[in-house]
Amino acid sequence: MSGNTFGTLFAVTNFGESHGPAIGCVIDGCPPGMPLSEADIQADLDRRRPGTSRHVTQRAEPDAVEILSGVYEGVTTGTPIALLIRNTDQRSKDYGDIAQRFRPGHADYTYWHKYGVRDPRGGGRSSARLTAPTVAAGAVARKWLAEAYGTRFRACMVQLGELDIGFESWEHVPHNPFFAPVADVQRFEDYMDALRKAGDSCGARIRVQATGVPVGLGEPIYDKLDADIAWAMMGLNAVKGVEIGAGFASAGQRGTVHGDSLSPEGFRSNHAGGVLGGISSGQDIEVQIAIKPTSSILSPRASIDTAGQPVEVSTRGRHDPCVGIRAAPIAEALLALVLMDHALRHRAQCGDVHQSVAPIAASAP
Amino acid sequence: MSGNTFGTLFAVTNFGESHGPAIGCVIDGCPPGMPLSEADIQADLDRRRPGTSRHVTQRAEPDAVEILSGVYEGVTTGTPIALLIRNTDQRSKDYGDIAQRFRPGHADYTYWHKYGVRDPRGGGRSSARLTAPTVAAGAVARKWLAEAYGTRFRACMVQLGELDIGFESWEHVPHNPFFAPVADVQRFEDYMDALRKAGDSCGARIRVQATGVPVGLGEPIYDKLDADIAWAMMGLNAVKGVEIGAGFASAGQRGTVHGDSLSPEGFRSNHAGGVLGGISSGQDIEVQIAIKPTSSILSPRASIDTAGQPVEVSTRGRHDPCVGIRAAPIAEALLALVLMDHALRHRAQCGDVHQSVAPIAASAP
Amino acid sequence: MSGNTFGTLFAVTNFGESHGPAIGCVIDGCPPGMPLSEADIQADLDRRRPGTSRHVTQRAEPDAVEILSGVYEGVTTGTPIALLIRNTDQRSKDYGDIAQRFRPGHADYTYWHKYGVRDPRGGGRSSARLTAPTVAAGAVARKWLAEAYGTRFRACMVQLGELDIGFESWEHVPHNPFFAPVADVQRFEDYMDALRKAGDSCGARIRVQATGVPVGLGEPIYDKLDADIAWAMMGLNAVKGVEIGAGFASAGQRGTVHGDSLSPEGFRSNHAGGVLGGISSGQDIEVQIAIKPTSSILSPRASIDTAGQPVEVSTRGRHDPCVGIRAAPIAEALLALVLMDHALRHRAQCGDVHQSVAPIAASAP
Amino acid sequence: MSGNTFGTLFAVTNFGESHGPAIGCVIDGCPPGMPLSEADIQADLDRRRPGTSRHVTQRAEPDAVEILSGVYEGVTTGTPIALLIRNTDQRSKDYGDIAQRFRPGHADYTYWHKYGVRDPRGGGRSSARLTAPTVAAGAVARKWLAEAYGTRFRACMVQLGELDIGFESWEHVPHNPFFAPVADVQRFEDYMDALRKAGDSCGARIRVQATGVPVGLGEPIYDKLDADIAWAMMGLNAVKGVEIGAGFASAGQRGTVHGDSLSPEGFRSNHAGGVLGGISSGQDIEVQIAIKPTSSILSPRASIDTAGQPVEVSTRGRHDPCVGIRAAPIAEALLALVLMDHALRHRAQCGDVHQSVAPIAASAP
Repeated sequence: MSGNTFGTLFAVTNFGESHGPAIGCVIDGCPPGMPLSEADIQADLDRRRPGTSRHVTQRAEPDAVEILSGVYEGVTTGTPIALLIRNTDQRSKDYGDIAQRFRPGHADYTYWHKYGVRDPRGGGRSSARLTAPTVAAGAVARKWLAEAYGTRFRACMVQLGELDIGFESWEHVPHNPFFAPVADVQRFEDYMDALRKAGDSCGARIRVQATGVPVGLGEPIYDKLDADIAWAMMGLNAVKGVEIGAGFASAGQRGTVHGDSLSPEGFRSNHAGGVLGGISSGQDIEVQIAIKPTSSILSPRASIDTAGQPVEVSTRGRHDPCVGIRAAPIAEALLALVLMDHALRHRAQCGDVHQSVAPIAASAP
Repeated sequence: MSGNTFGTLFAVTNFGESHGPAIGCVIDGCPPGMPLSEADIQADLDRRRPGTSRHVTQRAEPDAVEILSGVYEGVTTGTPIALLIRNTDQRSKDYGDIAQRFRPGHADYTYWHKYGVRDPRGGGRSSARLTAPTVAAGAVARKWLAEAYGTRFRACMVQLGELDIGFESWEHVPHNPFFAPVADVQRFEDYMDALRKAGDSCGARIRVQATGVPVGLGEPIYDKLDADIAWAMMGLNAVKGVEIGAGFASAGQRGTVHGDSLSPEGFRSNHAGGVLGGISSGQDIEVQIAIKPTSSILSPRASIDTAGQPVEVSTRGRHDPCVGIRAAPIAEALLALVLMDHALRHRAQCGDVHQSVAPIAASAP
Repeated sequence: MSGNTFGTLFAVTNFGESHGPAIGCVIDGCPPGMPLSEADIQADLDRRRPGTSRHVTQRAEPDAVEILSGVYEGVTTGTPIALLIRNTDQRSKDYGDIAQRFRPGHADYTYWHKYGVRDPRGGGRSSARLTAPTVAAGAVARKWLAEAYGTRFRACMVQLGELDIGFESWEHVPHNPFFAPVADVQRFEDYMDALRKAGDSCGARIRVQATGVPVGLGEPIYDKLDADIAWAMMGLNAVKGVEIGAGFASAGQRGTVHGDSLSPEGFRSNHAGGVLGGISSGQDIEVQIAIKPTSSILSPRASIDTAGQPVEVSTRGRHDPCVGIRAAPIAEALLALVLMDHALRHRAQCGDVHQSVAPIAASAP
Repeated sequence: MSGNTFGTLFAVTNFGESHGPAIGCVIDGCPPGMPLSEADIQADLDRRRPGTSRHVTQRAEPDAVEILSGVYEGVTTGTPIALLIRNTDQRSKDYGDIAQRFRPGHADYTYWHKYGVRDPRGGGRSSARLTAPTVAAGAVARKWLAEAYGTRFRACMVQLGELDIGFESWEHVPHNPFFAPVADVQRFEDYMDALRKAGDSCGARIRVQATGVPVGLGEPIYDKLDADIAWAMMGLNAVKGVEIGAGFASAGQRGTVHGDSLSPEGFRSNHAGGVLGGISSGQDIEVQIAIKPTSSILSPRASIDTAGQPVEVSTRGRHDPCVGIRAAPIAEALLALVLMDHALRHRAQCGDVHQSVAPIAASAP
C-alpha cells in the first residue's frame, strides 16, 4: 500500500496540504451500526485546534469537519467514511520567502530531493495541520472502542523543554493550556513567554495511556501491538523517541525487577506497559514520546538554497513555539487508531476463541 | 495483510516455532540479477547464533540456512526466495513444567488468551530464535543496498544493565562478545558473571547506524522512514524504547540547538538522525533501542497457572542472561530491511525524478 | 487492506453514496512532476456522465470534479490527490418505496444481511454512480501512462442484448451513443426504444483494448496482470464474465492454433491477449466483458421485504435500460488503473533490468 | 504487497520453482484451534498430482507435504503454517534445449524481458507445478469453512477441446480421469489419444461450485467477492476466461429473465451465481473458467531466441496434453481461499451484526 494510509482493516487514508483547498481522510472498514455525527468528531478536533491559547500558533481555523459518506440517518453503514475539513485561513504570503531555501530541521530539503517539486505553502504536506484528519479518524475509533470494550484514552505533558512537569493527577489536564497533570502551571507560562521573546522553541515529552484494553490485541511477530504503537507515534511530526512501559529505564533494570508478577487479583506492576510478546495483556497501555523543538523559529540559522548556495533562514509566520503542547489529543488519537485496527484484526482471526478462565485485572488492588 | 510479514515491496514472511521442525522466511520482491548464495546469508546468521560465548544461551544450533527458491545459477531471479533453517537442538523437556503456568514478562499469558492454545516448547513463536529468519532476510537486503548505494549497517552495545559503556570506536565491536565499541571489556565480563551467579538478568541499550543512505526514502505521512524504523525496532523481542537522532534528549533541547544547519559542504550536525519530515536526508541514520532484562530467570517469581491459581515460576533451561548481547546483528538487519523496502517504494513512485543539484554531504568536513 | 482501495502503489480509495453529499476518491502514490488539472479528468467523466443520450438515465449531474490536494501550481507533487464530486441531483423520494423491500438482482438483500443497515437512496453505495471516481482516477493513470510509454486505451460495445454488433472500425465509436464500432446504429436505436416500451432491460458485451503496453508488467503467481484485469473488470457493477485474448473460445482450440508464434518482426497472432504467464508481452491487451441486464426495471417481479414477507417490486426512477452503454469509458479506466499500478510495481523491483535485445513488435507486419 | 501472496487475512505466500529444491507456501492468519495434519492436506494434493492417468504428465512426484510450523499437538495455533513439498523428480536435461529460445504461448519471453534472467528448468516458476502449494493451502481453508459454515467445494470438466461434455451428476466426477460429470467417458479417452498422436493439445472448460455459503461475504466496491473470484481463477495457469452465474450469456438476456426472484422459501433461480452487488447471497456460487490448450506441444512452431533470431521450437518432455484435466481440484482450492479470506474479513468488520430475520434458502423447493 502507498504510504498515506493508517491501518489495515480500519484503514485511514489521509490527504491534503496545509494551504490547499482542503484536508481530510477516508476511513475504510468502520463497523456498521454505530451512531456517528460531526459533533462526535468535532470535540476532539477542537482540543487540537490552533489559536486556543497564547502559547500556540494564532492561525484561526475553525477546522469544521463534514461527513461526506458512510453515515446514513446518523448511523455508520460500513462503507467508507470520508471526512472533509476546508482550509480557510491560508496566508501563503507568509511563506513565499522560503520557497527556494531549506529551513533547517524541516522537510523542505528531503521533499525537494525526493519529489523534485514541493508545495512550500505552510509546509505543504509536512505541516502539523495534517494531524487534524488523524484526530478526526481517531475520534471515530475511540467511540467504537469505548462502546465495545470501555476503552479510554488520555494524554498529558510530562516535560516542557528543560522543565520536568511531574504528575499529580489526570484531573488537572483539561484545566490548563499545557495538558499538564499538575495544578500550578505558572512556571510553564513564564517559560513559554521567555522562549517566545528569545525567538526560540523547545521540545516536550508526552505520556499517553489507554485503559480498559481487551487482552489479545496484536500479532506475535512484526505487527506486534507495541511495534504498531511505535510506528504511529514516531510518525507524528517532530517525534524523536517512543517508549512503552518502563522504556529506556528498562535497559538499566534487572529481570527480578522488570518482570511484572501475576496474581489471581491482577498484575502487580506494569513495567511492560500493557504489552507482552507484542500482544495486549489487559493492563493499561503506557506510552511516552519525545517531541523535538519546533523547527520554525525567528532566530536566523545557516542553510542553503535550491541552487546549493549558502543562505540564512529565519522563519516568520504563525508557529507553535512548542509543538508538544498540542500533541496530547493527537497522541490519544494515534493510540486509538492502533487499538481499533488490532481489535478488528483480532476478531477476524480469533473471533471464536473463548477461554473458560477470564483474564485477571489490569492491576492488583 | 496478516501480521507476520515485514515490508510491502521487499516483503519478508516469517514462520516457525523455537522447537518445531524448522523456522524460516519467504522474501518476496527481491530485485533480480543479484548474485546470492547461502554463504552471503550465513555470515550474518553466525554473528547472531547462540553458543558463541559464555554470556549467551548455550543452545548449540548451527542455524544452517538453505535457499529453497528464487535463485538460479547463483543469481536472484526476482521470484520469492524461501529460506529454511532446520531446528536441530530441541530439548522440549526443559520446558515441560511451564506449559500450564505463565512466566512473568513472557508472552505466555497473552498468547493463551489470544489464541486459546499455545506452543510452550521454548517459548514457541515468541522465542528470540525467530529473529534468525529476520537476520537472514536482512543479509539479502544489505547485499543489495551495498551494491546499489554503498549503504552499510553496524550496531554496538552502549549500555549493559547499570553500566554505561561509552563509545571509543566501531573497530572494537567485532573483537569482544558484547559488541561493545570499547577496547577493555573486563568489567562487563565481571558484571555478567555476577549476574549469572545471582540468577538474574539485565537490560541493555543498542546503537544502530546506517551510512551511505540515499536521500528521499520514506513517505510524508504515516509510512515515514523513522516510523517504519520504530516499528521494526519495537517489534524486536524485549525492546521497550526507540530513539532516532537526539531522541528523548530532544525534549529538553531548544530549536536553536536542535535544527541541523545545512551548508554547501554538508550538514553541520545530525540531531535529526538522518530523517527529516519522515524522509531520509542522506545523513547517517542513527537509532538507539532499549532492551529489557531477559524474563527467563532462575530467581522464583509469583504468577498464576491456566486455572487462575497462584503459582511460583522459576525458569531453568538455556537462556541469555542479557538478550541485548545478541541484538546488534538483529538490529542491523531490521534497519536494512526498512531501508530496502523504502528504496524500492521510492524507485516505484519517483524513479524518474532527477534534480540538477546533487545532495550535499552527510556531514560537513 | 479494507475493500474500497484499488491498487497497491497507485492506490485509489473510493468513497461515497449515490445520494449522499458527495462521492470521490483519494489517489495515493501518483508520481510527482506530471501536469494535471481538473480539465484532464473532466473529459473522461463527461464520457461516462448520465443524461448524454435518450438511452441512458436522465439524471442530470454535471459530475464536476474538484482537485483538493496533491497538485501544486498545476503539477502533481507526489502526495495524495483527493478528487471530490458533489452530488447535486438527489431525488430521494424516488427511492423511498424500496427501503423495506429487496429488488431482485440488486445488492439490497446482501447489504442488509451483511451490514444490518443500508442506505437505500439511489442504491447507496451499490449505485453505478460510484464508477465516476474510478473514471476520474483512471484519467490520471491514462495521462501518466501515455506520457511514459505511449499507452492508449479504448473500448467499444460489441453486443447489445441479443444483437451482435460486429466490428468495423474504432473510428465510429465516438460518433454514436452506444460506443459501437460500426457506422450504422439505427437498429440499436430501435432495439432500445422497444426495450423501454416493454419496461425491460438488456445486457451487453464490451471490448477493451490497451495499445503501446510495455513488456514486463505483472507478477508470476497470484498478482498476474491478467488476474488483476479480471479482478478490476468483474468488480465493475453488473459484469458477469471476463475474457482475455481468445477467452472462452480457447477452451475449444488446439495448441497448434492457440500459441502465438514469435518472429523477429513481431508476434504473428494475439490469442494470448497481450499477457503470457501473467506478464505483459508488449502485444495489445485485449479484454471482453459481459454485462448483465439492468436490475432496475419497470416490470413487476416477486421478492420479499425485510420482514421476510412476499412482496412485488417494480422499480420506477431514472435508470439505464442497458448499463453496458456507459460501460466503455469505465472499462478503459479500470484497465488503465491496473496497468498503472503494475508499471510502478515493475519499476520498483526491476527498475534496473536492461536487456541488450529489444522487445519485438506487438504484431508482425 | 509483493505479488506472490493470496489473500489479506488468510494470506498464502507461495514460493518455489518446478525444478528447484522445493516448493511450498506459508499460510498466515489461520484461526487457531482447528485440528490439522498432513493427511488433511495430502488428500487434495493427491487429486491434483501428476501421473494418475495416462492423460496427464507422467512426472512421478509424490508431492508429500510437510507441515513446518503453526500446528502444535495436531491443532492450529494461529501462527503461520509453513507447508513444504520437496521436488524429487527433476529431469532438467529435458529442458536444456529451451533455455535460449522462447516457447510460443509460454512465459519464457515475458520472464526474460521482465527479470533479465529466468530459470528455464521445467518452466521454473511459471510451471503448473506451482499450483500444488495453492491446493495445499486450499485444503486448510476448506476444512475451516466446512467446520464453520458447512461450505463445500466441487468442480468438474464441462468441455474438453471441441467436445461439450454436458452435465449428468456430480457423482460421476470422482470416477473418471477427466473429472467429467457424466457416466460414459470413452469418447474423451479416444479424443485424448488422437490428440497425443497428433502431437497437439487442447483446451477445456471447468465448472466450480461452492455450496453452503454464508450471506454477506465480499466488499461493495473493488474487493467484491466475484472480483476476487475472477482474480483467483484468471491467475490460474492457462485460464483465459471467467464467468460467474449466467456469465457471458447474461449479455444476451433481458432484465425480466436475469434477475433472480426472491420468495420466503428461497431464491427462485441463480443467474447471479451466488453474488449480488459483490456480496454473497447465500446461493451456491457458480463459476466457469476457460482453459487454453497446453503450450508445450511436440509440433514444431516458429519463434525467436534470446538473440532475437528466428528458431523453431518443439517441446519434448513430460507435459499434460490438456492442463484442464487436473484443473478441477485447483479451481476448488482457489474458490475456497477466496471465501476463507472474505469470511475472516467479514467477521472483522461485521462480527456483531445480527438480523432478527434469517436469510432465505439458497433455492426455493
